[in-house]
Amino acid sequence: MAVYTDVGVEELQTFLAGYDLGDVLAYKGIAEGVENSNFLVHTTCGYFILTLYEKRVSAEDLPFFLALMNHLHARGLTCPQPVRNRRGEILGELARRPAALVTFLDGMSVRRPNTNHCGAVGEALAQLHLAGADFKMSRRNALSVAGWRGLYGQTGELANSVQRGLGAVIASELDYCEARWPHDLPQGVIHADLFPDNVFFLGSKLSGLIDFYFACTDALAYDIAICLNAWCFEPDHSFNVTKGRALLQAYSRTRRLDTGEGAALPVLARGAALRFLLTRLVDWLNVPPGAMVRPKDPLEYWRKLRFHQAVASARDYGFEA
Amino acid sequence: MAVYTDVGVEELQTFLAGYDLGDVLAYKGIAEGVENSNFLVHTTCGYFILTLYEKRVSAEDLPFFLALMNHLHARGLTCPQPVRNRRGEILGELARRPAALVTFLDGMSVRRPNTNHCGAVGEALAQLHLAGADFKMSRRNALSVAGWRGLYGQTGELANSVQRGLGAVIASELDYCEARWPHDLPQGVIHADLFPDNVFFLGSKLSGLIDFYFACTDALAYDIAICLNAWCFEPDHSFNVTKGRALLQAYSRTRRLDTGEGAALPVLARGAALRFLLTRLVDWLNVPPGAMVRPKDPLEYWRKLRFHQAVASARDYGFEA
Repeated sequence: MAVYTDVGVEELQTFLAGYDLGDVLAYKGIAEGVENSNFLVHTTCGYFILTLYEKRVSAEDLPFFLALMNHLHARGLTCPQPVRNRRGEILGELARRPAALVTFLDGMSVRRPNTNHCGAVGEALAQLHLAGADFKMSRRNALSVAGWRGLYGQTGELANSVQRGLGAVIASELDYCEARWPHDLPQGVIHADLFPDNVFFLGSKLSGLIDFYFACTDALAYDIAICLNAWCFEPDHSFNVTKGRALLQAYSRTRRLDTGEGAALPVLARGAALRFLLTRLVDWLNVPPGAMVRPKDPLEYWRKLRFHQAVASARDYGFEA
Repeated sequence: MAVYTDVGVEELQTFLAGYDLGDVLAYKGIAEGVENSNFLVHTTCGYFILTLYEKRVSAEDLPFFLALMNHLHARGLTCPQPVRNRRGEILGELARRPAALVTFLDGMSVRRPNTNHCGAVGEALAQLHLAGADFKMSRRNALSVAGWRGLYGQTGELANSVQRGLGAVIASELDYCEARWPHDLPQGVIHADLFPDNVFFLGSKLSGLIDFYFACTDALAYDIAICLNAWCFEPDHSFNVTKGRALLQAYSRTRRLDTGEGAALPVLARGAALRFLLTRLVDWLNVPPGAMVRPKDPLEYWRKLRFHQAVASARDYGFEA
């Protein structure tokens, strides 16, 4: 939550001169997104979000992310719409960084999702998967099963400094997931990070999805497994099967899961928990001394993983074939 | 430039329910102001700035600041207008902090003020002084001459760690200012911090003044001296007399300086430079290790002070009686 790059009014005006957006009236750095610098920009044509991509987002992936948002928006999904400049491009440069303008989306993320929110997310996720079906570009998921052993290697012995025995838990879970990971499930565009932060609501109605900067091509059901982890646990780390059922039923009404997808949910959910455990652990162990950004607790995902390890079948998540 | 306090959508909605501002559609933490947490709030009635006052602003001063903004806005000055809740109050509480909503003001601060900007600031400052003439409340300026020795005491021997001999320069300047400080100049409401950050422009036209959280009752001409320091030096620390003349002439056309005020400008300018040298020095010496906020360079004001020490009369600032 920070603005990493300072933008002067003169350079902003020069950048905006390339767009048909009128004159700039105001702009404010906003505390949104952990990886990029974001500004709310008010012009005579309306309100927009300007994003400067900092070094944690790979520049070669930006055309994929922006084209995807454009594609999904064109198919009726409410997500930020990239704005084209006069040359028809959606990716520009500002303050020596790749930069893009997207439309401003009303709505707010919820801190304590209820069952209704979980249902709305399930439906929106299925709509995203259907809308992405004819998207032509692809992007490998570097944070899927093939990438986890490398992440574990980055933590090494230090995992045990966070919790005694955590290294062995991860090593054994890696073996389990690598041996049983399904590779024949329906593939497509997945959001891969659809946490409550990235879903906007207006009242009880879902009003938009944001932050497509982990989107990639992978098993659609893996995206569902990520959402089960992100939306259906209570603050005390217990799994709320009513929320799981609401999410899965709403998803299935829009896009029906096939038998293989249903059966794979438990291993996909374990994998998703392991993925967030590992990336949070790497971030946790790499905080520069004195940094003001507090990393997220990796052990939240160790607790979720323990729930998944005890699951007998997809029915335990509320899944009904 | 940070958001210190997290505000959940539920508590924001509860807070806004006390106002006639419709439903909240979106809100974003914004990187503005160094002392408070600020949010841009979009409701069905428009855009507003919500400020949560953090501990560096004294709660008992808030009624003064908010009533002043309200007073100045009512007299036609473009500054944020505090919004009254249904009980007619402009100060509320949110997330256990004093909180207020003000109208959103378009415009942008300039990084490199030109002569035209300096003239516009001079005129706006005089308008502020005239508009404040019938404001009934008062607030002592804790950062005027009587407060400087205490600030110096906080730095102690450490001043010399920033630059060799700096302690002696400050001690001698304190003696000078205390001995010659004028106490019979016209008094009134002053902004006391009218730096380029706090002045908005749309194109070449001044569109608003913000951040009244140092406003107080003091010599009006001291406010001019602060602006000469803040607006009329070049990046190489040289004083630009053309800018000084533009600022002073534009001020005088709206509110004529009396003879005493003109004659006092050199000592007031020295005092203003000493005030910002001291407060920046205290901040500089009190940065927690590893903090991400980079304090402003105190030596910028030591260089400005050296210019003022060599000034023969107010004519050197471009003043014409």
